[in-house]
Formats: sequence, structure tokens, C-alpha cells
Amino acid sequence: MNGKRRPLLSVDEVTGVWAIIPTPATGDASCWHNESSVDLAETARIIEEMIAAGVDGILSLGTLGECGSLSWAEKEAFISTVVETAARRVPIFVGTTTLSTRESVRQTRIACELGADGTMVGPPMWNKPDVGTAVQYFRDLSDAVPEMAICVYANPYVFKFDFPPSFWAQVADIPQVVMAKPASAASYLRDQKASRGQIRLLPIDADYYAAARLDPETAVAFWSSSASCGPAPAIALRGLVAEAKQTGDWSAALELHNRIGNAILPIICYGDFNEFQMHNIALEKGRMNAAGWLKAGPNRPPHHVVPERIAEFGRLGGEAWAVLQKEYE
Amino acid sequence: MNGKRRPLLSVDEVTGVWAIIPTPATGDASCWHNESSVDLAETARIIEEMIAAGVDGILSLGTLGECGSLSWAEKEAFISTVVETAARRVPIFVGTTTLSTRESVRQTRIACELGADGTMVGPPMWNKPDVGTAVQYFRDLSDAVPEMAICVYANPYVFKFDFPPSFWAQVADIPQVVMAKPASAASYLRDQKASRGQIRLLPIDADYYAAARLDPETAVAFWSSSASCGPAPAIALRGLVAEAKQTGDWSAALELHNRIGNAILPIICYGDFNEFQMHNIALEKGRMNAAGWLKAGPNRPPHHVVPERIAEFGRLGGEAWAVLQKEYE
Amino acid sequence: MNGKRRPLLSVDEVTGVWAIIPTPATGDASCWHNESSVDLAETARIIEEMIAAGVDGILSLGTLGECGSLSWAEKEAFISTVVETAARRVPIFVGTTTLSTRESVRQTRIACELGADGTMVGPPMWNKPDVGTAVQYFRDLSDAVPEMAICVYANPYVFKFDFPPSFWAQVADIPQVVMAKPASAASYLRDQKASRGQIRLLPIDADYYAAARLDPETAVAFWSSSASCGPAPAIALRGLVAEAKQTGDWSAALELHNRIGNAILPIICYGDFNEFQMHNIALEKGRMNAAGWLKAGPNRPPHHVVPERIAEFGRLGGEAWAVLQKEYE
Amino acid sequence: MNGKRRPLLSVDEVTGVWAIIPTPATGDASCWHNESSVDLAETARIIEEMIAAGVDGILSLGTLGECGSLSWAEKEAFISTVVETAARRVPIFVGTTTLSTRESVRQTRIACELGADGTMVGPPMWNKPDVGTAVQYFRDLSDAVPEMAICVYANPYVFKFDFPPSFWAQVADIPQVVMAKPASAASYLRDQKASRGQIRLLPIDADYYAAARLDPETAVAFWSSSASCGPAPAIALRGLVAEAKQTGDWSAALELHNRIGNAILPIICYGDFNEFQMHNIALEKGRMNAAGWLKAGPNRPPHHVVPERIAEFGRLGGEAWAVLQKEYE
Repeated sequence: MNGKRRPLLSVDEVTGVWAIIPTPATGDASCWHNESSVDLAETARIIEEMIAAGVDGILSLGTLGECGSLSWAEKEAFISTVVETAARRVPIFVGTTTLSTRESVRQTRIACELGADGTMVGPPMWNKPDVGTAVQYFRDLSDAVPEMAICVYANPYVFKFDFPPSFWAQVADIPQVVMAKPASAASYLRDQKASRGQIRLLPIDADYYAAARLDPETAVAFWSSSASCGPAPAIALRGLVAEAKQTGDWSAALELHNRIGNAILPIICYGDFNEFQMHNIALEKGRMNAAGWLKAGPNRPPHHVVPERIAEFGRLGGEAWAVLQKEYE
Repeated sequence: MNGKRRPLLSVDEVTGVWAIIPTPATGDASCWHNESSVDLAETARIIEEMIAAGVDGILSLGTLGECGSLSWAEKEAFISTVVETAARRVPIFVGTTTLSTRESVRQTRIACELGADGTMVGPPMWNKPDVGTAVQYFRDLSDAVPEMAICVYANPYVFKFDFPPSFWAQVADIPQVVMAKPASAASYLRDQKASRGQIRLLPIDADYYAAARLDPETAVAFWSSSASCGPAPAIALRGLVAEAKQTGDWSAALELHNRIGNAILPIICYGDFNEFQMHNIALEKGRMNAAGWLKAGPNRPPHHVVPERIAEFGRLGGEAWAVLQKEYE
Repeated sequence: MNGKRRPLLSVDEVTGVWAIIPTPATGDASCWHNESSVDLAETARIIEEMIAAGVDGILSLGTLGECGSLSWAEKEAFISTVVETAARRVPIFVGTTTLSTRESVRQTRIACELGADGTMVGPPMWNKPDVGTAVQYFRDLSDAVPEMAICVYANPYVFKFDFPPSFWAQVADIPQVVMAKPASAASYLRDQKASRGQIRLLPIDADYYAAARLDPETAVAFWSSSASCGPAPAIALRGLVAEAKQTGDWSAALELHNRIGNAILPIICYGDFNEFQMHNIALEKGRMNAAGWLKAGPNRPPHHVVPERIAEFGRLGGEAWAVLQKEYE
Repeated sequence: MNGKRRPLLSVDEVTGVWAIIPTPATGDASCWHNESSVDLAETARIIEEMIAAGVDGILSLGTLGECGSLSWAEKEAFISTVVETAARRVPIFVGTTTLSTRESVRQTRIACELGADGTMVGPPMWNKPDVGTAVQYFRDLSDAVPEMAICVYANPYVFKFDFPPSFWAQVADIPQVVMAKPASAASYLRDQKASRGQIRLLPIDADYYAAARLDPETAVAFWSSSASCGPAPAIALRGLVAEAKQTGDWSAALELHNRIGNAILPIICYGDFNEFQMHNIALEKGRMNAAGWLKAGPNRPPHHVVPERIAEFGRLGGEAWAVLQKEYE
């Protein structure tokens, strides 16, 4: 992207709604012989709509963004489109998780040159890392591409790593590590303390209320893949929690929190986390397609074999969120 | 490679000792900015020595072969060297495990063009697959590159998949799937039955005696990473088991089995499998370097941070195998 | 116990500090041939001191109370002493977890006749229960002994059960189930919602601050085994959180929260939960003995084999708490 | 039982088919208020029939024998009936697994006085033991009741313990520990080596063929709960394996092995081990009731809530075994 690069994002700049977007797929994206599966027009449209709706940042190329299933050429084209469209109106993070330190360095460097503000990245997942290995990975990456902000993709299932306090304490010293995307707020206070306020921990929208109550001062941002089913409820939640922090009356925030919690039940397989882990791409893309706010398209291989039960959960989840979106938009 | 390609390997052709080799690393291979870390001269030397020692096949670019940590250019150079050196004297399998069906197709196709006989490959590991997803992955791969034999890399920890009988029953119908590399012989009879004799199941050398006793007719091959600490004990085991099947006297085979079992204790962390999973690259390369039969070199990132305890286990394992090698060579 | 029984405890009556006490052991309690291992004098002394210190309720005969290692005669004598000494000044819960519905019924009935107010009990642990089995267990128990309040002992490791929302939703309809003892506040909002406010969920003291921030209205009670190293810090925490709810200034509560968190680090093996699960009796009794506020005595078999590393963690934990106790008493 | 006690069983005496029997339940055994649920007449009949059929030993009061769900009075009555009926014609092992060393000592001592030859027992299961704790438990038990033989109940799910080689190496030195009941033959060679031939390891009938092939000399006994659906197939397997060891022709043994493997598929939930662990009592008793060779009766609480899917698996398993029984009796 032309023009001056935004300086390295600071922790204080990480606030509000961080929408997680899919990588829109063309109709034949499920075939292994497809070589160009990204719907770039829909990609640009999503970015425009997200910014218009008022999101504060964008995360892409994570699990549901099919980081693992895209070719490098596809990722490069997608990143270019996202960055060009956003045109620095909001910070853009792209995923450069790979099986290797050096390949992540390569991809992150190019993403940086293309104009991305940061990478959402987890440690190489072939072998379970120990803490020393995981920390060194983030050190190497930030040494190699110092202009790029890092969002630690703290998913224990994907990365076979439980991201303990000793990990947070060490990566907190890396200036590039400004944020993290854990699954929930269950260890919010513990990890906040371990990272000494130097990393913004973003819970999922469904746990933002919890984080905000646990620590109203530091809990000022959250991630939302639901935003790709329609961003209005997430934007509303941001506002209600901010108001509650002012007034001390949390009842309206709690009510929306509960409605959001109910709306995501189908796509977490009503609590069967094992099943969710196997099918989360199909569940997320399925609900986005059903909600209709964007076109995520079909799943790329190997995750294109979708049991009917899972497809149904996706549809139910999309319909549930569409009701909320209609009400809050 | 020039000249005529060997026809698709059949199950019956998979016999004997299949040595697992490392991807020899240059001295500075642990630095993230290294761009060419493969010691190709040592690679060629290893292949010559393995063939001279009498191994029946070669498996490469698995976990300890640092499939995950190499750049594609490095893998391509390594594959070329291995294939050219072997010159069709023994079948060569190379690893094309990636995060994506399409990337595995791409790499497998090029490996095939370079002259490799097969690929040792596991399903994409980002998300835990269900059986349908894992089976479809192998179907897609064999559809895309039908000339290439497939060795299922049946490692439940790396691939988050337990390779149940229903999986074997389905992939057994894919002609390209001719062999599998499980960790042990614990489910040998079960999986042999499920795959109806259409897949050669190779246990580790330390479990070949067990497999041969469980089913003397089908258990005629095994894998050995220990062979990279010196192949003589594995060659000897092959012979002693063959003799035992003839004579019915298994005592000599059992004695070597027990000695091999003791020799690998240090690098399985004396039974602490959790620790082994985190550090198996360092443990395997460490013992190979200590045994001195080949030069595996340092670990590539992210697995270059090696606790001293692990380094010591590697040294002990290398020394233990060197004693066996000296005796049997 | 003579005199009128307290009516069935209501959810609203469950507030404040619920101290968890050990079952004080005589000097030779580690020998399998000991037949009377309970130090009843120390038992009575502890109850008096706890009540004098201001605790709001007492929980006994859980894991560290060696429910599993005591004979029935010993449990009966202990219960009698506790109940007689407390003399209805605070509610007394005793553990009647067994391997069987019917044995739990038998013990709970006698505990009720002896004057206990409630039982802290988990489902039979031989086989992992499904939700239907776990719920029916609590239904059977409350049908059998309707006068007895029930505290669900929600320990997923001991009981091989993860206590999901569907469990809480169903046991919430049992009037006797008035409280629960989970390990932490990680699922506080989720389980509070599932149980519709009909069960008081007590987090550990080290997570009371978190629960109080998550839901200031319902989080009004917590459990504390640390109280058996000296109850003053728990009493102080109760007060500081109550003040914070009034004033909106949580800083003093947070500071004590952090100090409590640090003080328990040694006995949770600095985060190695696997090790904690194996040795928690030795860790808890060890720190109580080291803190010196009471005499827990030696461990009863089978948990009397204590590695020196574990003994050291216990000593460190006891010393750390003793510092807090001295400051707050 | 009157008359002279059999001397302590030796490893060499543990051979052949060891039938695992249920504790027959009366019609109302599922109610928590039932106080006498054992059908002693059916108990005596089973023992007579098992001995008439030619089994070599009897194991009782394990998981499916509802050791955990019986009152002590019921266990005592059951043990008396079994021992009196057997009248020393075959060795009788009864389960004395409890939550406590001292309670297991108490029960084992009485079982010994009643005339049982041994106890099938696992370490206390409240907390996961470490190796030192598990070994000490068996030492304490054998010190306390030296006349009683011990069969280690090596179930990793029930006892939260994986029974590693270091455990076997240590308990092998206890003269009373003469046998063990693991789930399968997966670690047969490993554990046989660790226990230096001083413990007879009994695999399940469905893995006896595997053990016999792995080590024909030591694999001379197996356990069979299927025998309670009709003992003829297990008796036939004993004979076919013995013949195969003589002739070297294993084909007939393998055929029955495969048929037995197929017949147990329904009650291992077709490989869903998690489900099996939750419902194995219902699955085993259900198939026994369906097979009709004995009357196991209903399940005792807490395991009396049986989902219809599980009941169906039990019926299918009983029918499958009944076919085999009819053919081999």
C-alpha cells in the first residue's frame, strides 16, 4: 500500500470491537484443483461495511479465515484487498500462522510490506511447544519484522499449548506483542496480572461483559466473529458496557450479554466442545452464510466435508444472530 | 529424475527395514534468518550409506525430518538430492504434510515429478478432523497425484486424530495407500483386520518383534529412526525375526528386541510421553549427533530451544545405540 | 444433637466465609492398623476458634478432610464432635461422598440425626457419570434425607464429571441443593445463569474477588481451606469486598486478592495442576501444619507417602499464609 | 467357610479362563431404599454352572459386579454364597476396592476369613495416585492380609492411574500379587518384562489370541466377562489357543478370536470408549440379561438411569454372544 505506514500500534490503541472476518470463497472453492478461491469483491465489500458499521479493528486469516487452507498467492491477494480497502481507517491484522518460524517470518514481512498493521499468529503447531519454545517464536518473529504488531492467537486446541502465566510474563516484554485473542475471559485476571498491563487481552464478545466486570479499566476491547453475521449487536454491546462503567448500572449490558450467549449456543454445539473443535470452520461459515450479512461461501478442503448435523447448527446459529442484528442495526 | 518411473508400489513390495532419516542441517540452521539450511552433501552420503547397509526403503521429511520447519525451496533441494542419490535402488518416500489439502497436492505433485516413489503424509492438523474429513483428504490427494504411493503418517499427537478402525477400512480402498506408520504395534491386529490386508502397517523397530508374533505373515516390515544412529541393529532384527518365523525359536529375536527397547528409553524420556511429544525433534537429532553415524546438525526454529535435560537424554540415547551398532555392524 | 433442628438452609442464608477444615489426625494415623485416628480434642478446638474468628459456615470431610480415608466409626465420631461443639452457632456441612447412592444415603441420614445441617457431596466416582446419572443421584439423596441441605461438591477431577450447565439447570429444582463448591469462578456467570439463582455458587477465596466483580449481587459467599492456616485473611477479604460493593472502589479488595493468590502458589505446585491433583491432601495438610494455626496431623493411608518436593511446597505455603494471618488477625 | 484354606495361589496356578460374574440383583434393586438387593439363589446357580462349564477361576465384585454400589452386608452375603458354593473347586477372587486403605484391609480380611482365595482390587480412586502411593497401597494390603492372593485391577479409567512399568516392577516383589487384570494386551510384553514373570497378566478374552502370539509361554490365562453370557466360547478359545501353541497353526484360534471381537462390538459402543466408560455396568448387565445364560437383574443406583441407546447396545451384544454360545456349547 502506498503512503506512510501507521506507527507500531500501542496497547492503549487497542479498544472496542475487533471483527473477525472470513476469507470469502468462490463457488467451487471446495475442489482441491481450484487455484484461486478468494472472492475479492466480497472481501472489499465486507471491509467497507465493517468500517461503516463502526468496528474498531479487523482480524483476519485465523481459523475460520481458513489461514491453514489457503495458498500463499490467495493469502497475498486477500491481504492486499483488505489493506487497500481499509486504507488505514482501522487497524488491520492478518494471520501468518504456519508450521515454521521462518515461513511465518516470510509471510509476516510481506504482509507488513503490503500495509497490514499486525499479525494474529500462534506458535507452530506440529509439536506441542514448551514455554521456552513458544516465547522464542514470538521473539524471533518480532526481531525479524519489528514494524508489525502482534496479536497472540491464544487457542489451546489449535496450538497444543495452554498459554500459562509464565508465557504471558515473558512475551509482555516484547514491544510488538500488544494484544491477545484468548477464547474466553476465564483466566482474564490471572493473565492480565501476568502480563502487567502490557498486552490487551480481548475476550470473545460473549465474554466481554465478564471481562469488563472483572476489570473495568483494562477490559476495553473484545473480538467478535459474530460480527460477520452482522456487527450491530457487538457495537451495541460496546456501548452498553461503556455506559455501565459510567453509571454503575450493568443491567442493560447483562441483558444483551445473555442474548448474545444464547445466540451462539448452536455453533458451539450446545456445549460439546470436542465437536466444535472439529467443525468450527463449517459452523462459523455456515452461520455467516445463513445470517446473510456477508457471503462466506463454501469451505475449502480439507474442511469441506460437513455432516448434516453440523450444517443445521450453522443455520440455527445464523438465524439466531440475524434476529439480534435486525433489532440492533 | 531422468529415466522411467517405478510403477506404483504395491503392498507386497513393502518389506524389511524402512529407515527414517533427518534432514541434515548446516551449522547456522537455528537462526531464523538462515535461508538455506540443508547440508546436501551429508544428505547424499546418508542415502549411500543406508543403501550400502541394506535398508529396504527410506522415509524422510516426517517430524524429526523437520517437515514443518523447512522452506519449500529447502524441501525441494533435499528431495532432489535424495532421489538422485538413491537412483531407484530402494523406494523413497518424502513427507508432504502441510496445513492444507491443496498445498499438499502441490508439493506431492512436484515430489512425484522429482522422482519420489511415495509420500508419508498425515491429514491437515490445524483442526482435529473427523473420520470423514481425514478419509476425504487421502482421497483428494490420491486423485490429484495418482502415481504417488501414500504412507499414512498415523501419529495421533501431531494430527489430533486417533486413526480408528473405520478410518482404515475406508482408506484401504484407495490403491495409493499402501502403507502406514503408526507409533507402535498396540493396535496391530485390529487395524490389520480393518484394512483387510490392503495396507502394510509398519510398527517401530522396538515393536517389530511384537507385530511379528501377533501376525507373522503380514508383519514383514518396520520403520526405524534408530537406523539413523546406525542401521546394523535394525538389519539384524530383520534377519532374526525372519529366522524365528522359519524355526519357531524366537529367543534370539526377543533378546535383540529387549536390547533395542532399552536403548531407546532415554529418548522416550523414560516413559514420559508428554515430554517426548514436546521435544522429539531435539531428542532424535540429539541422539543421532551423539551416535555419530551421521550428522543431523542443529535444530531448525522453532524447535531450537533445547533444555539441558533433553539434550542429556539425547546424548544418552545416542551412546546406547552406538554400543548396539558397534556390536552388529 | 439434642434440641430443635435448624430448618432447611435457604440459598439466601449462604453468605460469607465457609471454612474448610481437616479431620485432625493422631500421631500414628499413617499406619494401616490404626483404628481410631481422629484427634477429637483438636477437632473441638478448631470449631471453637473458627466460630470465634467469625466464619459463617463450616465445610468438612471433603478431599483434604480425608473423607475417603476415614472409617465410618471415625467419621461418626468426628461429625458428633463438630456438631456438638458448634451448637448451631454456624451451619455445619459434612461430607458423605461414597462409592454408592445407598451408602451416601445411609451416612447422610445418620449425619442428619447427629445434627449436621448439610452434606457436601459429589456423585459416586467409580464410573464417570452422564448428566442423567449425576442428577438422579442428587434427587435420590434429597428424597431420602429431605431435612439435609446439599452442597454440590463440584470437583471435576475427583468425580470424573464436568458439571455442565444442563446439570445445574436440573439440580436447581431440588430444594435441598442450596449451594455448590466449584474450584474457581471461571464459569461463575454461566452456572449462575443455568441455576437461575437457586444455588449459591461458592468460589475459592482466591477467586472471590473475581466472582464479586462478575456478579456483585449473587457473589456473597466463598469457601476457604486457607482459613485452616488462619482465618483472618478470609474474614478481611469478606469485609473488603463488601465495602467495595458499597463504595465502588475495589482497590483494597484487589490488593488482598493478589496477596492471597500469591500465598497459595506453592500448594497449587506453581500451576502444575496434575501434580496438585495427586498430592492435594499432603499439600493442604502440610501447609496447615506449617502455618501452625491448627494441628492437621499426618496423612492417613493411602496418601501418607509424601515426596519431599511436595512436603516442601506445603511448608512454603504454610509460611506464606502465616505472614498474612499475622498481619490481618 | 469350614475346612482347610488353600495355600496362597502361585503365579503358575493362574491359568485358563477366569470368568467375571455380576452380582445378581433382585427386581427392585434400582431403588435407593432397597436394603438387600442380592439374588443369592441365582448367585449359587451361576457358580455351579460356571464350574460345570469348566472355567478355571472366578473374579467377582469388580466394576460390573457393582463393587461400588453394594452395601457391605450385601457384599458379605454374596461372598459367603460364592465361596460356599465353589467349595474350593476353583479359586475365587472377590473385589475389595474401596476409597481407603484401611477399609480395603477390613473387607479383605473378612473375605479371607469367609474363604475367598484372593481379592481383585485397585488403589483408592479419590485422588489420582503417584507410583509410590499405588505401590504402598498394595504393600499395606498384603502386609495386613498375607493369606490373600491379590489380582491388581489395572483399569486406568476407574483408578486414574496408568499402571506404568515402574509400578509393575515394584509390586512384582510382593508375593501376594500373583495376577493382574488389564484391559487389553496392548502393553503385554512391556509389563511382562517389567514384572519379571512374577505376575500373571490376564488380557480380556478378545485379546487372548494377541497375548498368546506375543508370548506363548506366559500367556496362558485370560479373563472373560463375556463368559457370563455363556462360557462355551471362552472355553473353546482356551482350547484352540493351546492347540495352536502345539501345532503352530493359529488359523482356528484366529477365526474364533475374530468372532469374539465382533460379538463384543456393541457393548464397547462400537469403539466410543468415552461412552463405554460411562455406561459399562449397564452395557454388561444388559447383554447378560439379553443373552439369557444368567440373570444379572437391574442396575443398582447410581447407575440405574440407562439411556435407550445404551440399552439397545446391551441387547445387541447379548444376542451376538448367544449365537456363539449356542454354537460352542
